[in-house]
Amino acid sequence: MIDKLVKKIKETKAPIVVGLDPMLSYVPEYIKKTAFDEYGETLEGAAEAIWQYNKGIVDAVHDLIPAVKPQIAMYEQFGIEGLKVFQKTVDYCKSKDLVVIADIKRGDIGSTSAAYAVGHLGKVAVGSKTYSVFGEDFATVNPYLGTDGIKPFVDVCKEEKKGIFVLVKTSNPSSGEFQDRLIDGKPLYELVGAMVNEWGKDTIGESGYSSVGAVVGATYPEMGKVLRKIMPKSFILVPGYGAQGGKAADLVHYFNEDGLGAIVNSSRGIIAAYKQEKYASFGEANYADASRQAVVDMIEDINSVL
Amino acid sequence: MIDKLVKKIKETKAPIVVGLDPMLSYVPEYIKKTAFDEYGETLEGAAEAIWQYNKGIVDAVHDLIPAVKPQIAMYEQFGIEGLKVFQKTVDYCKSKDLVVIADIKRGDIGSTSAAYAVGHLGKVAVGSKTYSVFGEDFATVNPYLGTDGIKPFVDVCKEEKKGIFVLVKTSNPSSGEFQDRLIDGKPLYELVGAMVNEWGKDTIGESGYSSVGAVVGATYPEMGKVLRKIMPKSFILVPGYGAQGGKAADLVHYFNEDGLGAIVNSSRGIIAAYKQEKYASFGEANYADASRQAVVDMIEDINSVL
Repeated sequence: MIDKLVKKIKETKAPIVVGLDPMLSYVPEYIKKTAFDEYGETLEGAAEAIWQYNKGIVDAVHDLIPAVKPQIAMYEQFGIEGLKVFQKTVDYCKSKDLVVIADIKRGDIGSTSAAYAVGHLGKVAVGSKTYSVFGEDFATVNPYLGTDGIKPFVDVCKEEKKGIFVLVKTSNPSSGEFQDRLIDGKPLYELVGAMVNEWGKDTIGESGYSSVGAVVGATYPEMGKVLRKIMPKSFILVPGYGAQGGKAADLVHYFNEDGLGAIVNSSRGIIAAYKQEKYASFGEANYADASRQAVVDMIEDINSVL
Repeated sequence: MIDKLVKKIKETKAPIVVGLDPMLSYVPEYIKKTAFDEYGETLEGAAEAIWQYNKGIVDAVHDLIPAVKPQIAMYEQFGIEGLKVFQKTVDYCKSKDLVVIADIKRGDIGSTSAAYAVGHLGKVAVGSKTYSVFGEDFATVNPYLGTDGIKPFVDVCKEEKKGIFVLVKTSNPSSGEFQDRLIDGKPLYELVGAMVNEWGKDTIGESGYSSVGAVVGATYPEMGKVLRKIMPKSFILVPGYGAQGGKAADLVHYFNEDGLGAIVNSSRGIIAAYKQEKYASFGEANYADASRQAVVDMIEDINSVL
């Protein structure tokens, strides 16, 4: 799957991923009205509004981008109805040949991580049958439990040609509380980065990249520069561009000299573009066109520094 | 909710929690047969088998114990059908007045953690309405992202009188890879433990315990002893007893002098008791009675050292 991701990035010339993290407050009023008229102000109504909103965005941008990153929390908060729409969104994006990076940040002890890995990336056995369940292409994984928690994901990645992105240095303001603390003179994130490199070493694809990538926030460019060297074969998934404050100029060091090796995420900046002054002229009814323009602008912005 | 948990532990004299982590391989053949006859070897069939299995166990043990801990991964691996049974299990346990500790190990940046927190412990808004969604009483949370990732959970705990258990020192063999590394001469888990104490300081209930607890594995008793002192007001959720190797004698230091402060989990050791030589005489058809006997034995074992 890492090879497919690299191929699609080359084809689209767009090392970006659109974060499908829908908040109800982003969804245009007319979409909410239609959904609530049909289902009431219910969990089902919320889920339907999010589905229509997502579908509009995906239809408008799918030809420009290699991948999407749905954030499962935004669906899970609406319970089963929300998770049905997460599944529907994953399936729809796959039908458009988009690579789906599920931002699930799971991680547990071995047998439990194995359950997450088969459910999201692999196949689960029921009697004599096996099923692909959520069927995403990549998942984000939390490293706090160490190799036990990661290995079941890596095993499934090898079997199913899927991939993971391990949280190394996250984009949020307090990420340094634990991640930046020095261990033998080096920050914890470097230690985790070195393990990412190790975990991925038997999974290098034809593209030269491994199935074990890393999450490194755009908001910490100096750390990105160091981590790029520690994990030369790992793709870096970069959140924090745009709404969280990361700028294109900061991103150059997340890439390798081949112009590859990183994929930059924007969520709110794309999916709620119509709410920004810059794209306000599109109007709420054309929110998806605003998202398309925001994608075009983001690709130009990022390519301008590479 | 921490006060309810303490009250129920005192009433039952059982500082234990039963982990509802059903693997299909634990479910008696006759239950699987009935479910597969009705739904086929499908995800729905798997979910139905797990539901019937869970219900049997809960019916057999609910009067002996204060709490259950369903592990969401074991349901999530079967997709939407599995998650419906997770929800059904939570609801059923609550109808039996059991405290439900959802082992979800979620954690993300602020706005995303907020979505998990409202979905699992709080209420989500849809237009002018609000809904309790999964409605568990406690959730486990991963600390790797720092205070940003935890605070939204703490806020919901305050509003809704719910609680969390933050992963501090996990029970798995490789937990030390990052958690034990020394920072200014102290292991990372102590640093996380000190933050747990801090995060909980405004949430102390009538019982004297805070809504912010910690997960500390039974498999590392010396560390449990130190962590008990670092987090005097936090309840410790202790996985790793029984099947993972933790022994009752190891657990005494996880408790405070009031005989409270810890709740010990057993999953496989209880729910798959009928597969152990010790309980084999119950037979598969009486798997729930075997689980009941295993609960009785576990309570006696733990109380013998307190």
